[in-house]
Amino acid sequence: MTTSTQLAPVTWENDALVLLDQTRLPVETIYLNLTTSEQVWGSIRRLEVRGAPAIGMAAAYGLYLGIRGSEASNYDEFWQELNQQADYLGSSRPTAVNLFWALDRIKARVEKESGASIANLKAAVLDEALAIQKEDAEVCRTIGEHLLTLLHDGMGILTHCNPGALATAAYGTATAPFYLAKERGWNLKVYADETRPVLQGARLTAFELQQAGIDVTLICDNMAAMVMSQGKVEAVIVGTDRVAANGDVANKIGTYGVAVLAKAHGIPFYVAAPLSSVDLETPTGADIPIEERPAEEITHGLGKQVAPDDIKVYNPAFDVTPAKYITAIVTETGIFKPEEIGNSKK
Amino acid sequence: MTTSTQLAPVTWENDALVLLDQTRLPVETIYLNLTTSEQVWGSIRRLEVRGAPAIGMAAAYGLYLGIRGSEASNYDEFWQELNQQADYLGSSRPTAVNLFWALDRIKARVEKESGASIANLKAAVLDEALAIQKEDAEVCRTIGEHLLTLLHDGMGILTHCNPGALATAAYGTATAPFYLAKERGWNLKVYADETRPVLQGARLTAFELQQAGIDVTLICDNMAAMVMSQGKVEAVIVGTDRVAANGDVANKIGTYGVAVLAKAHGIPFYVAAPLSSVDLETPTGADIPIEERPAEEITHGLGKQVAPDDIKVYNPAFDVTPAKYITAIVTETGIFKPEEIGNSKK
Repeated sequence: MTTSTQLAPVTWENDALVLLDQTRLPVETIYLNLTTSEQVWGSIRRLEVRGAPAIGMAAAYGLYLGIRGSEASNYDEFWQELNQQADYLGSSRPTAVNLFWALDRIKARVEKESGASIANLKAAVLDEALAIQKEDAEVCRTIGEHLLTLLHDGMGILTHCNPGALATAAYGTATAPFYLAKERGWNLKVYADETRPVLQGARLTAFELQQAGIDVTLICDNMAAMVMSQGKVEAVIVGTDRVAANGDVANKIGTYGVAVLAKAHGIPFYVAAPLSSVDLETPTGADIPIEERPAEEITHGLGKQVAPDDIKVYNPAFDVTPAKYITAIVTETGIFKPEEIGNSKK
Repeated sequence: MTTSTQLAPVTWENDALVLLDQTRLPVETIYLNLTTSEQVWGSIRRLEVRGAPAIGMAAAYGLYLGIRGSEASNYDEFWQELNQQADYLGSSRPTAVNLFWALDRIKARVEKESGASIANLKAAVLDEALAIQKEDAEVCRTIGEHLLTLLHDGMGILTHCNPGALATAAYGTATAPFYLAKERGWNLKVYADETRPVLQGARLTAFELQQAGIDVTLICDNMAAMVMSQGKVEAVIVGTDRVAANGDVANKIGTYGVAVLAKAHGIPFYVAAPLSSVDLETPTGADIPIEERPAEEITHGLGKQVAPDDIKVYNPAFDVTPAKYITAIVTETGIFKPEEIGNSKK
């Protein structure tokens, strides 16, 4: 499902779940071989797997690992065990929406096949987990194909945070066109913002693109304006946590600033957004709550205390980019002007 | 010379040079008592004192410590010893222009008083060192007074890097109005960019303002746009390394981005610039060479590896803010539109 150049965060291989331990990146590349739902619970809990789609996939395989040894003799017993395992896996990271979405989807599939044998129900669970992963890869690849039509060989492109393969089944969202361009022999020149305070850009995006042989240059967030003014960047592509109905986009802190800078430099600003992130029930960006994170991420985040004791800190995890700064939002259904994002789900 | 609330990076006290060890900040506040030029050489070398004016002052006092025990019996012998000590101190940090400026100024004073007794020549060296410090504090205070006329009580102000008291005799440049406002009982609300990669904002600016009881909030560089959009910031004040004749301003990396963001949010952008940084021999910002710094500052900056091995990095130390983004440049001689900066030296 992934191309040979991509790191695979979640793989089903030889009857086991293989996870790339993301807590060791970028210094060590270690794959974990998980064969029980308890191991999967622990990996999700310890953030060894991260990124909404990747967490959902891991939980789905974890659910199969949890019921494949079931000795249930009828549907009701199996259903009860399935629900216990799902509740257990859900408790690993209760705020991860995608985790529950994946578990619920598997439960719905089992419910639909309630007349089948226990062996066939077990097979259906694995089949659904595999389908979730396959569909996610297809969504990402399709978004990448659409984005690629907006780019050209030799282009310089800036990205922020890790909207990458490491968070998804394959390709990532905003990074998908980089992998597809590589497959086609294009030479894109990617600039990755390090993305303070948690440094997803430095630790993850720079790493996965480097591993894939893509030309990537790491910069600090505050260097984005300079590389834009030097003409090194001809497009910006970012991911998103949520797109509101008016085309406002919530994404990792710093995205809004990059969008303002892009507009000031006449550079197009694209948002890669799977339909699952397009939330037409949220009218505008102002309706998206912004989580504030602990001060320690900024003051002690890099292995050493870098700010005075008891300093007042403002640490919003996300910001909202108003639609007027966005050139286009790209979903698996096409390329949309932000004010027309409602059409993406029609 | 400093107000009671300010940290004093360089002080002449009880016949010794007292330096605040800036390599220990912000975790430990340790003062070093230096009584020999060798100790001063080491402190400059180890960056225990930093900031162009502070380094110049330290070297000036170091020169006095180096010659106060001189047993020269005539002017020529004294002059030779003075030059040896000056050359020695200059070798501590050969790229620090202000260091040589301070040493040369003391040499010129001694040359002017060549007819005086050796005791009086020694006294002249100390007197000149004290004068250098006094003048620097006056320059900073005057810049602060001018800037204060552009501000009002209760205002939110964003600053970048450490244009602070820790780099100067007192007050700092861009921070000077914050200290003066505090003296007057104003309540300014300062936002300090952490200033990657070397974190001068987190380690130094946040620290010195906090110590002075000024309301300061630390943010990551990529949060500046968000606090501006929230109306929390009504002015930006930064320092500068060099102002070109056309009003373009070189300053710590990230300054240009802040200026673009300020303009986009309709927020005035002020540059605090001692005349010593106004370089009318440099026609435009394009003529200012931009130093690139080692990748390790970004990838291994603070105790832990945060990016993959051998990742390509772009790490410019400075950027240039074009005059069109600057509301005013404030020197000790007044407030100037950037295109009229030539008048500051008339």
